[in-house]
Amino acid sequence: MLEKIDHIGIAVPDLDAAVAVYSRLFGIEPTHREVVASDGVETAMFEVGESRIELLGSLGPDSKIANFLVKRGGGIHHVAYGVADVQLALDHLAAEGTQLLDTAPRPGAGGRLVAFLHPRAAAGVLTEICQPDPSRPSGDH
Amino acid sequence: MLEKIDHIGIAVPDLDAAVAVYSRLFGIEPTHREVVASDGVETAMFEVGESRIELLGSLGPDSKIANFLVKRGGGIHHVAYGVADVQLALDHLAAEGTQLLDTAPRPGAGGRLVAFLHPRAAAGVLTEICQPDPSRPSGDH
Repeated sequence: MLEKIDHIGIAVPDLDAAVAVYSRLFGIEPTHREVVASDGVETAMFEVGESRIELLGSLGPDSKIANFLVKRGGGIHHVAYGVADVQLALDHLAAEGTQLLDTAPRPGAGGRLVAFLHPRAAAGVLTEICQPDPSRPSGDH
Repeated sequence: MLEKIDHIGIAVPDLDAAVAVYSRLFGIEPTHREVVASDGVETAMFEVGESRIELLGSLGPDSKIANFLVKRGGGIHHVAYGVADVQLALDHLAAEGTQLLDTAPRPGAGGRLVAFLHPRAAAGVLTEICQPDPSRPSGDH
């Protein structure tokens, strides 16, 4: 059901500085940057194999990563797995008793439909599942 | 240079319990379990696309994940990228001024040669690079 690692989300206190670090590490520039206003974050994506590294900068104290940055100073925020159909996967997981944070897919970065599982459902790891959103451009190109 | 996400290492307080959680989540059993005595850990590997999820249990208070478990209770410990040649990659990174924890490859889990970069070199993320070790079986099959 979980087909691949779609991306790893890394929360950073300074997005421009982190983009410079990862550009040197990977030897490539990010494929795109994007503000996800609903989450209060700006993202920068790097392609690596079939996956991506998603750097996440906070746009303010109410963003989805603000508390994480205060507590941890930065680091890996979540892991996202690619699935064929987020709603089907959510229904399957819910039927198994998996704790979910989202019960329906919502728009995420990179033209994806996304949903989050509770960290308790994945040994303490905030876990996302996602699929391309056919109604939006991917933003990857 | 970094060709793919080879694996994500997740430190867990109870390896058997975490294996049960991820077996249900992925719908598959781990491909293998292995003690890495030099790191004081036992690992269980799950294949997902071209990558793996590596669950890490601690074998004692001196293990490489013991402090992390005390501080965090568990979670993502490191990310490993696949490279063609770890020593060449280390030399390249060192020449660029990247902070390294290992300056030469050493044996890791799953028949890999591995080396770690300092978290400061990757925006706060403990980062490994690895390659198959031609002198050892992979243990994946």
